[in-house]
Amino acid sequence: MEKPSLPKGTRDFGPAIMIKRLFILDAIRNVFQNYGFQPLETPAIENLSTLTGKYGEEGDQLLFKILNSGDFLKDADQKLLQEKNSKQLTSGISEKGLRYDLTVPFARYVVMNRNEVSFPFKRYQIQPVWRADRPQKGRYREFFQCDADVVGTNALICEAEIILMIKDVFKGLGITDYTIKINHRSILNGVAEIIGAAGNEMSLFVAIDKLDKIGEEKVREELLGKNFSQQSITTLFSFLHVKGSNKNKLGFLFSNFGESAAGKKGLRDMEEVFELLESYGDNGNNIEFDISLARGLSYYTGCIFEVKVNNVSIGSVSGGGRYDNLTQAFGDKDNLSGVGFSFGVDRLFDAMEELDLFPQGMTVSSNVLICHLEEESFRFGLGLLQKLRQADIAAEIYPDLSKLKKQLDYANRKMIPFTLVIGSEEVSSGQLTFKNMQTGVQEKLTIDQIIEKVKHAQLKPE
Amino acid sequence: MEKPSLPKGTRDFGPAIMIKRLFILDAIRNVFQNYGFQPLETPAIENLSTLTGKYGEEGDQLLFKILNSGDFLKDADQKLLQEKNSKQLTSGISEKGLRYDLTVPFARYVVMNRNEVSFPFKRYQIQPVWRADRPQKGRYREFFQCDADVVGTNALICEAEIILMIKDVFKGLGITDYTIKINHRSILNGVAEIIGAAGNEMSLFVAIDKLDKIGEEKVREELLGKNFSQQSITTLFSFLHVKGSNKNKLGFLFSNFGESAAGKKGLRDMEEVFELLESYGDNGNNIEFDISLARGLSYYTGCIFEVKVNNVSIGSVSGGGRYDNLTQAFGDKDNLSGVGFSFGVDRLFDAMEELDLFPQGMTVSSNVLICHLEEESFRFGLGLLQKLRQADIAAEIYPDLSKLKKQLDYANRKMIPFTLVIGSEEVSSGQLTFKNMQTGVQEKLTIDQIIEKVKHAQLKPE
Repeated sequence: MEKPSLPKGTRDFGPAIMIKRLFILDAIRNVFQNYGFQPLETPAIENLSTLTGKYGEEGDQLLFKILNSGDFLKDADQKLLQEKNSKQLTSGISEKGLRYDLTVPFARYVVMNRNEVSFPFKRYQIQPVWRADRPQKGRYREFFQCDADVVGTNALICEAEIILMIKDVFKGLGITDYTIKINHRSILNGVAEIIGAAGNEMSLFVAIDKLDKIGEEKVREELLGKNFSQQSITTLFSFLHVKGSNKNKLGFLFSNFGESAAGKKGLRDMEEVFELLESYGDNGNNIEFDISLARGLSYYTGCIFEVKVNNVSIGSVSGGGRYDNLTQAFGDKDNLSGVGFSFGVDRLFDAMEELDLFPQGMTVSSNVLICHLEEESFRFGLGLLQKLRQADIAAEIYPDLSKLKKQLDYANRKMIPFTLVIGSEEVSSGQLTFKNMQTGVQEKLTIDQIIEKVKHAQLKPE
Repeated sequence: MEKPSLPKGTRDFGPAIMIKRLFILDAIRNVFQNYGFQPLETPAIENLSTLTGKYGEEGDQLLFKILNSGDFLKDADQKLLQEKNSKQLTSGISEKGLRYDLTVPFARYVVMNRNEVSFPFKRYQIQPVWRADRPQKGRYREFFQCDADVVGTNALICEAEIILMIKDVFKGLGITDYTIKINHRSILNGVAEIIGAAGNEMSLFVAIDKLDKIGEEKVREELLGKNFSQQSITTLFSFLHVKGSNKNKLGFLFSNFGESAAGKKGLRDMEEVFELLESYGDNGNNIEFDISLARGLSYYTGCIFEVKVNNVSIGSVSGGGRYDNLTQAFGDKDNLSGVGFSFGVDRLFDAMEELDLFPQGMTVSSNVLICHLEEESFRFGLGLLQKLRQADIAAEIYPDLSKLKKQLDYANRKMIPFTLVIGSEEVSSGQLTFKNMQTGVQEKLTIDQIIEKVKHAQLKPE
C-alpha cells in the first residue's frame, strides 16, 4: 500500500499550528467587526463564467477547474479530442472552478443581491482560495485571504479606516515595525501624462513596480527598451526620488502637476486621507506615501495600499485599493465604487514566526486532566469532570486505566496546565491532589476550591 | 452580458445567515473544546488516491474531480479518447479531488503524522465538504461538517462523552426535544447470527435501516426477496419489537443472545456506556437504545449513533460511531481504534429555523452609528469614533454627508442598536444626542457616559 500524501502546495494544520492561526484570525475578525464590517461567505465552487476573464490571462491559467460529473466526454468535440487540444476542450468538459480570490465572488454576490443589500455595504470574508501556481516558499496552492470591502460610497474615510484597521490588527498581533505604503492610481496617471507616456501607462507601471526588486538601473533600461525617451525617464525619476515627509511629497507633486487634472485629483484624495487620519487622532506613524507603488491588478482606480512587515524575509502581508468598475464585469449598470483590502494569513503567520511574536504557552486544550489510580477513582472522577465542565472549564479524564506516569505524560504533551490525581484516599476524603504542571506545586483541595483556582488562572492574562 | 449565477447546490451566506451559522458553530466549538478536543484543518484538495475506494462505489462517483493543470490531454490514451470513455479516462486527466468528508482526511493525517501525534488523539474539525449529489431540499453540494473523533483508545467513555457532547450542544442551542439513538454493530451481528443470517449481514442491515421510511411490511417483503426464511424474519422482528426502557431492552437481549459471542460483546459495551453515563451524573433522558439503527457506512465496528430533532421535517442532524480499521486503509499496521461523530450545520440551521429557536435580535454589526449634520460635525465624529472603538465598542460613522433620515435608515437596516447624532451645538457643548433605536428614547450624554452605557448594554444578556 502506497503511503498517503498531500497534493503539492497544500498543508494540514495540526493543533499546534491551528492555535496560532486562530490567534491571527481572531485578531483580524475582531478589528473588522469593531469597524462595523459584517461577515459573508461564498461557495468554494463558482461557475467558470464568473471567474474567467477577471484575473487577466495568467490568472485564467491558474484557475483550478472541476471536471463535469458523469459522462463528461459525451458531448465533447471529437476533433478536439483527436488533436488532444487541451486548451479548447476545457470549456466542454469543465463548467466550474475553485474560487481564486474573494473580491470577484463578492462583486458577484453584490450584483445578485442588489435589492437586499443595504449600501454602503461593509462586508468581511475569511476563506481559502486556490491557485494552480508553482508552489514555493511562502506560496501555496490553497491559502487563506481575509478581506474587508466597502461598496456603494466614494467617501475617502473608507481609505482612512483601512489604514486604521491595519494598524489595529498589527497592534493586536504585537507587530510594531511595519510600513503601510499608499499611492493613488490617478497620481500614477498624472506622472504618465506629464512625462508624455499617456496611453502607455501599463508598461510604465509594470516597470515602476519592479523598482524594489531590480533597482533603478534595470528599470531605466527596461523603459528605454520600451521606447520611453531619455528625457521622460529623467523626469520620471525626479518624481520617484522625492524624499521627506508625506506632506513634503504632496507639496512637491502639487507644484509640478500643473497640467494634469488626473494627477491633481489623486493628490487631493491623498491629502484628504491624511487629513481624515488626523481628525481620527492618528499619529501618522508607519504610513508612507510611495509614488513608486503601482500594484499589479488592473482593476484599481483610486488609492492603492501595500503593507510590509519590516526586517522579515516575507513579501507584502496585506494590500488593496479602490476599484470603480468591478460590478460592471457582471452587467451592473450603475458603477458601484468599492474599496477594500486583504490580509494574507499565511504570510502573517510566517512573519510572526520569524519575529517570534506568538505569545508563549498558547494552547487550545483542556485546562485540567483528571488522572486516576484504579477503576473506583476513575468512576469517581467522571462526576468531578462534569462539575468542571459545567463551570466552563475545559477538562478531560484520561480514558484508559493506565500507569500514572503515562497519564501525566499525556498532560505534558498536550500542554494541559493542571492535573488532578485521584486515588482511594481522595475518593473517601474529597480532598483532591491538585498539581500545577508548570511549577510542579501540589496541594490538597476540594473540587470547589479547584474550580475557583482554575477560573482565576484562566482570567489572568499571560 | 449574462447574469451571474451560483453553481447548483451551492449557496452564499450573507450577513443575516452568517450570524446564525456562527451562533451554531460557536456553540459546537465551545463544547468540543470543553471536552478537550483540539482543532485540525486539512486541505480542501486531496489526492484522488486518498479518497477513492473509501466511500463505496456510489461515493466514488460523487467525488468532485479537479482537472490536471496545463496540457492535461498530452499523455491521455488516444484509444480512450476516441471511444469517449469518460470513466476510464478520468484517472489520466485528474489526480486530485475535493474532500468528501472529514473522517478520511483525518485518518490520512494520523497515518502521516504518526510520530508527532500523542495518543489518545482528540481532534475536532469544522470544514466544508463537497459531494456531486443531486441537490434537493436540505441536501447541498457544498456543506459543512463538524466532526469530533478520538483515536488510539478503546475506552467506552469516549462513547459516553459523545452523548454528553450532543446534549451540551443542544443545550447551548436551546433544542430540547430530540432523540439520540444508539446501537452497536456487534448487536446487529448477534441478531444476524441468531436468525441464521451470518455472512449475509449487509443485506440484513440495509433492509433494517429502511424500517423508518418504508415500514415493517415492505422490509419483510425485501427480506423474503433476499431469501431470508419466514422463520428468521419472525425472530428478527421479535427483537426489533422489544419495547420499554433501555435497561429492559438490554435485559431482553441478554436472555435471548445465549449463543452469540458477538452479540453479547455488543450488549456488554452498551451496558457499560449506560453505566458510565450514570457515573457522570447524566439523567439518561433523550437517549434511546434502538436495535433497528444500522447506519449505512460499512466502516463502523462498534457503537453507532444517530440524532434526530423531533417534530421537524429534517432528517438526522448528527451521527457517528466507532471504527477499528480506518487507518488500515492507509497501510497502518497497528489498527488504531477510533470513535467519532459529526454535526450537520446546515440541517441544524434548518431545524432551528423551523422551530424558531434563534435568539431574537441577533446581529454581528456595529453597536453605535455616528450620524452628523454637516462637515464639521462629521470631522468631530471621527475622534469620538476612535474613542468608542478603543473602548472595544464596535462602531461606525455614516461615511457620506447625507440627510439624517438616510443615516438613521442605514442604522435600522443594519440593526445597529444605538445612534449618536452630532450637530454644531453638540460639537461646542460635548453633550451628544444618544438614541436607543429600539425604544426610541433619546438623551444628552457625554462620550464617556455613552461608553459606559453601551458597555453595560453589551454585557446584559438578551
